[in-house]
Amino acid sequence: MSAFSEKLDAAGVASILARVAERRPRVHCLTNTVAQNVTANMLLAFGAMPSMAGHPDEVAAVAAGAGAILINLGTISPEGERAIPKLLAVAQEHRIPLVLDPVFVELSPLRLRLVGDVLASFDVLVRGNATEMAVLEPLFVPKRDIVRVTTGAVDRIETEGRSLSVAHGHAWMTKVTGLGCASSALVAACRAVEPDPMIAAAAALTAYGIAGEIAAERATGPGSFAMHLIDALAGLDEAALAARMS
Amino acid sequence: MSAFSEKLDAAGVASILARVAERRPRVHCLTNTVAQNVTANMLLAFGAMPSMAGHPDEVAAVAAGAGAILINLGTISPEGERAIPKLLAVAQEHRIPLVLDPVFVELSPLRLRLVGDVLASFDVLVRGNATEMAVLEPLFVPKRDIVRVTTGAVDRIETEGRSLSVAHGHAWMTKVTGLGCASSALVAACRAVEPDPMIAAAAALTAYGIAGEIAAERATGPGSFAMHLIDALAGLDEAALAARMS
Amino acid sequence: MSAFSEKLDAAGVASILARVAERRPRVHCLTNTVAQNVTANMLLAFGAMPSMAGHPDEVAAVAAGAGAILINLGTISPEGERAIPKLLAVAQEHRIPLVLDPVFVELSPLRLRLVGDVLASFDVLVRGNATEMAVLEPLFVPKRDIVRVTTGAVDRIETEGRSLSVAHGHAWMTKVTGLGCASSALVAACRAVEPDPMIAAAAALTAYGIAGEIAAERATGPGSFAMHLIDALAGLDEAALAARMS
Repeated sequence: MSAFSEKLDAAGVASILARVAERRPRVHCLTNTVAQNVTANMLLAFGAMPSMAGHPDEVAAVAAGAGAILINLGTISPEGERAIPKLLAVAQEHRIPLVLDPVFVELSPLRLRLVGDVLASFDVLVRGNATEMAVLEPLFVPKRDIVRVTTGAVDRIETEGRSLSVAHGHAWMTKVTGLGCASSALVAACRAVEPDPMIAAAAALTAYGIAGEIAAERATGPGSFAMHLIDALAGLDEAALAARMS
Repeated sequence: MSAFSEKLDAAGVASILARVAERRPRVHCLTNTVAQNVTANMLLAFGAMPSMAGHPDEVAAVAAGAGAILINLGTISPEGERAIPKLLAVAQEHRIPLVLDPVFVELSPLRLRLVGDVLASFDVLVRGNATEMAVLEPLFVPKRDIVRVTTGAVDRIETEGRSLSVAHGHAWMTKVTGLGCASSALVAACRAVEPDPMIAAAAALTAYGIAGEIAAERATGPGSFAMHLIDALAGLDEAALAARMS
Repeated sequence: MSAFSEKLDAAGVASILARVAERRPRVHCLTNTVAQNVTANMLLAFGAMPSMAGHPDEVAAVAAGAGAILINLGTISPEGERAIPKLLAVAQEHRIPLVLDPVFVELSPLRLRLVGDVLASFDVLVRGNATEMAVLEPLFVPKRDIVRVTTGAVDRIETEGRSLSVAHGHAWMTKVTGLGCASSALVAACRAVEPDPMIAAAAALTAYGIAGEIAAERATGPGSFAMHLIDALAGLDEAALAARMS
């Protein structure tokens, strides 16, 4: 089946970034402890607000007011496992969009089972790398309307009958821990202000990729790259986007 | 009721920083996993020592020798919840001062209950933002002698009949995750070497705010700001304090 | 008993670094939440791959394919405690070398007990500071073949009848949280590609120490030092090693 391939221009990306900056959506992140700090800093640089409670007895209360919910399995714990059904229920009740990041699902039957639980929810976007997304292919078969985002040198954003691709970024983005996880949080931030999940994902990944290109020009290695990436993301404007999207 | 408003000069702040650098107090932090790393790095830059054990079976043993204890509810877990009464008992037994950071207490009934538990202890200072502190107002009514620190563009430090204010810092301090949490840890470090909690809080927040001002002059965004803040805090001396406190 | 003292030259270190870069070993880290991020970034800068799952129900599956396993007790949790025997079993079954980092063992009877459990395994290298290693002396008595790495101004690497020392590094390495923990992970990465644990430890600590010396020349404080250390480690080559090992 052929998919209609769309394209987002700099004004389109800038318009979504402006909405994030104005509305300051809170993204509730049940995410891994390795990536929590850089994820929160990327959300703040983007103009969004992070919250990261995971206690099963409070996670629903804290997530209830969020604009989007991220579930990332990177260091899933027994407590986090108990928090997931509570997050799915609160997402359903308050119609909060979900983003799932199936870190290392290829290594763990537990994670594959949890992915299945999340995919049964109503409004889920999945963001993973090629290895992770390949493992999930069978789960996607009965759910062709799920938005699947496969990041890499070129990011592919797909759902039934539609596709977008984003060709921005820098190889150093794979040399700093948590930068893939943070991209999922930025997709969630855009999804909080943009009803079309395909467009939301494309906007987030374009902005992030371009920030990465700017950072790479300033950095002398992956350590300084991470810092410049936060600065570049915080300073991104439509002119900078347009200059690199032509 | 009018409060006696005090003022701390550069020599006063420098004297407390010098005591921290000489005695190297250990601050035991039961703090959120997002802010642990930056909290530990700020304590080290300040000359203090961090410890962060949270296992209920060892937290009392590890905290017993600390100069101050920080309880931050940012990502409180069931295990952390079980650790709190053990920390309160060890603080009571060894007369270790407590600092409480009630992160996002406005979002969670669980956190409000835990704040109540901590406030029942003997020597507690509370550091939060305006939203958090407003929610706690009713709990403070029967406890007018608790030291309440409300940070913002101007930090207010208050207790029955006394007040101080600190007007240092930079807006980027709200754009990097964990910097508020880290300020609570620096207050705890000063409290470990200074018996007057009002003066301890004012010294910590003055030093931190001035380090923030110095860092903002060197940074190009929130990512580089965080790094320069650590460098500036580590390099702070009485001359730098005096130059900005006049 | 006198130990045969060995020496590693720049070509020897470079050869091990080259093997890490080629084989990209995965180091599975059950490590503290304070140091997870910097540990992962140092492993990536080194060319290795981090994984950090800790859930008792999946930790064996995730660790099974790793080239080395690191157990660091820094913020050991009840769940982490349950994960340890599973890691020891998978290490035994798949002959995966273990590195143990006994953080703050001097403060906690729980940690001393866990160290005893790990030391009963078949292929363990222990990396700690002088205080930690002194506490463990009695446990080492019946296990003279264990490789003991005591880091400090001069790192000592010892086992029955053999010793090496490494005199590289910078005082700022003690002023950034998690840098000792990260050194244990780098030792594990080298151990994954080098069958002699003494040589693996010497190579990792030499490279790390020299990266620290390079970073100190570029940094203005502990915050910028941490960033430059990652950059320097990622950029290390045989010429840079040779220039400082003469």
